[in-house]
Amino acid sequence: MRDFSQDHRWLSINTATLRKSRGEDLPLPEILDACARLGIRAVSPWRDQVSAAGLSNVSKQVRSLGLELSGYCRGGMFPAAGAAGLKAARDDNRRAVDEAAELRAACLVLVAGGLPGALQGKAAHKDIALSRSQVRDGIAELLDYAKQARMPLAIEPLHPMYAADRACVNTMEQALDLCDELDPKRSGALGLAVDVYHVWWDPKLQQQIERAGQDRLLAFHVCDWLTPTTDLLNDRGMMGDGVIDIPRIRGWIEAQGFAGYSEVEIFSTGSWWKKPHEQVLETCIARHKSAV
Amino acid sequence: MRDFSQDHRWLSINTATLRKSRGEDLPLPEILDACARLGIRAVSPWRDQVSAAGLSNVSKQVRSLGLELSGYCRGGMFPAAGAAGLKAARDDNRRAVDEAAELRAACLVLVAGGLPGALQGKAAHKDIALSRSQVRDGIAELLDYAKQARMPLAIEPLHPMYAADRACVNTMEQALDLCDELDPKRSGALGLAVDVYHVWWDPKLQQQIERAGQDRLLAFHVCDWLTPTTDLLNDRGMMGDGVIDIPRIRGWIEAQGFAGYSEVEIFSTGSWWKKPHEQVLETCIARHKSAV
Repeated sequence: MRDFSQDHRWLSINTATLRKSRGEDLPLPEILDACARLGIRAVSPWRDQVSAAGLSNVSKQVRSLGLELSGYCRGGMFPAAGAAGLKAARDDNRRAVDEAAELRAACLVLVAGGLPGALQGKAAHKDIALSRSQVRDGIAELLDYAKQARMPLAIEPLHPMYAADRACVNTMEQALDLCDELDPKRSGALGLAVDVYHVWWDPKLQQQIERAGQDRLLAFHVCDWLTPTTDLLNDRGMMGDGVIDIPRIRGWIEAQGFAGYSEVEIFSTGSWWKKPHEQVLETCIARHKSAV
Repeated sequence: MRDFSQDHRWLSINTATLRKSRGEDLPLPEILDACARLGIRAVSPWRDQVSAAGLSNVSKQVRSLGLELSGYCRGGMFPAAGAAGLKAARDDNRRAVDEAAELRAACLVLVAGGLPGALQGKAAHKDIALSRSQVRDGIAELLDYAKQARMPLAIEPLHPMYAADRACVNTMEQALDLCDELDPKRSGALGLAVDVYHVWWDPKLQQQIERAGQDRLLAFHVCDWLTPTTDLLNDRGMMGDGVIDIPRIRGWIEAQGFAGYSEVEIFSTGSWWKKPHEQVLETCIARHKSAV
């Protein structure tokens, strides 16, 4: 297991972590500059932030700053209530692949989607098995496109509390079943993004990390689970402030040969998004050394 | 699959559903009277409510009203940070068995417990595997005692969002692994309480219900998952108001031979606990017929 205590060369910042500074929106170019100033070598930007700043501007900026992308957030959201919605999801995912390729991301993270309309509070149906089959079909279709662009797809199993509205892929085992079905030869084109927040509770976590193996461990995300957690989406904790044994999980991941970045992804309306982003970054660096 | 549309003979009310009426605490004797008045044949009371009313009083009242107990809530909370805590949990669980027997409950529901101290916001450690081994040992020990009292133990897998503070048994598969280990002969003394709120998202739900079989399906709880869900604990929905396909899950359960009560358990600070309890009960009856 790598020693993170001496430096932060393997720290990546998911740009959602700095979405707000002092409660105000922080534009992506400022986020990237702030990361580079502190010697952070990698980021993982969100599409809405890239879109607001302009793809070609962001592309130029990351190259000029020498930043790597540990991933690109995000594709997915495959399920839809009708053919038009399914086609729109397909087209949008292809654009996400193109953007990820332009930005030279290590992978495109896929958040599957849940019941159509549930995110807006009006689920079109209650058939989660149907959504899951649409996710399967959507990834299968996108995989061909992504292979041509040489952009690995990283399915991110989301915590079961998001099954209805954000992702109906909710365990490592389920995600790996999809990988086995759609990429049985382990080409490297399809794998997982493992976020400790989503999977730490899973009694089969170690077993499924071993099943995944190096070929399918494409990204590793960290934050912490707070007790109590006051909001289902935006109350993630800084590493070390919660109950997740992050070093143990990282050890399991690295035992498979994973040698990539540890990406910090924190959504925190009540705490970290209220602080100055410089302070958040300095805390990420400190906790990367002490708690990851 | 039984037809619930014509009457509510298979409706049970978990008394937490009526814990408050119009925002005020409602004592258990009034809850029991209100259920009996509406022809409800079964309830599942909570220990704190029984304790407040007095065990012998409650015992007399349920017999005089002719109410059955579909379960008794709850034993468990096995993990502790030291020997004294483990012994206290053991003793308290034996008392819970005794109370359940006095009340002639169909089973004692077990909520496993999580990381010691996490419910108070101060986890004593982050070793969920340790908690899980303490849960295993605790159930093994209690099982001998419960067998002598002829009180079946129903492990309730809780939603993974409660893994830290309430229960580190989080899937049907994990709970059934425990049953296989501790009661390999399927004596009927150990099984599951299946609450749709906790397990609806599980891609292996149908498979694990079939694995459980009639011997191990001891209780069936219903409510609904709302989108959005605004609180991790106390924002459960009334059946039909959320995204869970309850009839489908009931069909799977009944295909195994389950013929017991459908128990409504709703914690709802923001909605149902604010309403008059008579209205809540009438809604439970109506939704039992239309949405379960």
